[in-house]
Amino acid sequence: MIKNITGKIDFAESLRGKKATFLLALSNTKTINIKGITQAGISGMIHLTPTLDSEFLCIGEVRCIKDIAKTPKGVPTPALMTRGVHLLHSFGDIEILDLGLEIKPELDYFKIYDFDIKPSDSIDKGANINALDLFEKGVEFGKNYECKNDYIILAESVPSGTTTAYATTKALGYDCDGKFSSSFKNKPNSIKEKTIKKALENIKNKEDLFDKIGSVSDNMLIFNAGIILGSTYKQTKIILAGGTQMASVLLLANSIVNYMGGSLDSKNIALCTTSWVANDENSDIKGLLEMLDFDINSYYTDFDFSSSNHPALKLYDDGEAKEGVGAGGALMYGFLNGLTKEQIIKKAEELLG
Amino acid sequence: MIKNITGKIDFAESLRGKKATFLLALSNTKTINIKGITQAGISGMIHLTPTLDSEFLCIGEVRCIKDIAKTPKGVPTPALMTRGVHLLHSFGDIEILDLGLEIKPELDYFKIYDFDIKPSDSIDKGANINALDLFEKGVEFGKNYECKNDYIILAESVPSGTTTAYATTKALGYDCDGKFSSSFKNKPNSIKEKTIKKALENIKNKEDLFDKIGSVSDNMLIFNAGIILGSTYKQTKIILAGGTQMASVLLLANSIVNYMGGSLDSKNIALCTTSWVANDENSDIKGLLEMLDFDINSYYTDFDFSSSNHPALKLYDDGEAKEGVGAGGALMYGFLNGLTKEQIIKKAEELLG
Repeated sequence: MIKNITGKIDFAESLRGKKATFLLALSNTKTINIKGITQAGISGMIHLTPTLDSEFLCIGEVRCIKDIAKTPKGVPTPALMTRGVHLLHSFGDIEILDLGLEIKPELDYFKIYDFDIKPSDSIDKGANINALDLFEKGVEFGKNYECKNDYIILAESVPSGTTTAYATTKALGYDCDGKFSSSFKNKPNSIKEKTIKKALENIKNKEDLFDKIGSVSDNMLIFNAGIILGSTYKQTKIILAGGTQMASVLLLANSIVNYMGGSLDSKNIALCTTSWVANDENSDIKGLLEMLDFDINSYYTDFDFSSSNHPALKLYDDGEAKEGVGAGGALMYGFLNGLTKEQIIKKAEELLG
Repeated sequence: MIKNITGKIDFAESLRGKKATFLLALSNTKTINIKGITQAGISGMIHLTPTLDSEFLCIGEVRCIKDIAKTPKGVPTPALMTRGVHLLHSFGDIEILDLGLEIKPELDYFKIYDFDIKPSDSIDKGANINALDLFEKGVEFGKNYECKNDYIILAESVPSGTTTAYATTKALGYDCDGKFSSSFKNKPNSIKEKTIKKALENIKNKEDLFDKIGSVSDNMLIFNAGIILGSTYKQTKIILAGGTQMASVLLLANSIVNYMGGSLDSKNIALCTTSWVANDENSDIKGLLEMLDFDINSYYTDFDFSSSNHPALKLYDDGEAKEGVGAGGALMYGFLNGLTKEQIIKKAEELLG
């Protein structure tokens, strides 16, 4: 049920039956305002998607608006799977990282870490991120975070995050064209590529790595790269729960380590995504991970909605949405705790009503 | 579902819902090279059985060879049941004790304790074990081991281990003829008894208890007897998960305690085996346990494959294989955590494919 993309199954199996802390990293980038660049949310309210995702995951309801985030075609947020797993076999804790949200989630009793980070600007005009400062905040967090459970699942919700991930990875000099996923089934490549082209033009005279990524990236990527590096001091096991965006986090960490002349001990880090990303013909997460200078254990969960009759869920199998809110990592957590595909499908159907 | 062999049900019931550390003690004895003495594995590769069992239990795949250990008639390893329970309701941790393996398991992320122990020689020529040293290593381990869960399930995989257990117990002077089990349905008694006769002839002039068992025993028996004694200092609860071999561990601990003029506080120790051992007409585990000078709670699990149609699994009900890799203790753990017989059978069938 859990399959390798790279590496071996041992890391995942060593977490069987263990409890995870689910950390959800949220941020907004004004890149979403470029017309047609993302469908990760409700038209006109896409900036609310991370806020809604976190509310739905934690408490099973949303407070800003009525419906949970849906794409224009009616694909519900992947948080459905994450919440479904949490209802069937709970995470040890869910905590929120506010990495620059326009609207904060309305959640009592759930820990929301506030790092005093502003939403980033649109990358076609320069994201305007103090990348070094943000990265250092991530490192500090990773260094000092006391995991109350056996390991961490680090997930994200960042609308238009595949665009910023693609731009970041390209700015770092990786050969990544055609390797990035999209929440669209039919990727709006012209808009995305035009945006990335503009973003890269903005940095053509920049030399410093942090200057460059501060212009083309998003807060989640930079902060999480910091967590990755910081966490190696603590030997905490971390599953990056996400698709090509999380691969980009790793590539960014890789570049920063190389830039600083160091090396990264990756033995306690892994990535897990969904089958929709792993088997996507329009992207190549394996290709991204193979560009890392360190070894990485990476996985996907053999999960789909083929046995469901719910039309909104079937859209996942058609290639819409694919990943987000740690769906792949949550499914792995469910499987490692004895849940079956059928149980999770049934729960997702129940949640949709 | 859990029935007593000796003692009362209270010890088992006090562990209901609790998490166990599964410790798998592995060793090789060259006794396996005596033709026809064991069927615990694949012909010509029986020395690999403990290695394969541990790989399969931990990660669900084997790395040395393709198929999991099977007896010549195609009975798969009892690790199927142990792995099945682990998939349905995980052990808190699985850790490996390398007590003299020819080939080490290829496992990342799983703790493998290395005590610098060599495989023992064939008992018909003298096992050549430094028994006092090995016993003391076991005591030290038992004294110092920090159980991260509520109790320990201590299991074994030692091909031809019932032969060495029988020889050990007989060498200690217990009246144990006819009381030892075998992985064969029709026990190859003539070969086994000839081997044991030879082994005992080798020690007829020896006086020292450790000298004697160093010649006729195997590493697992001696080390585990040490764990039993060492663990009494820590009051850790231990379930010996096995059949007549684990009864022999207890008899050995009993003899050593008597030899040293001490006594053993057995209130935190119990044994659990399968129904195939407990109800075996060709052996007598109850008779073995009743020779102990201390009281012992012992159990078997009321589990069989009568409702399965899988021919390989039906062979268990016919009396092949019977026990190993802690199957009986794992089934008890499953029952104590709400699993049903049907769930476990279904999972074993799935694992066989």
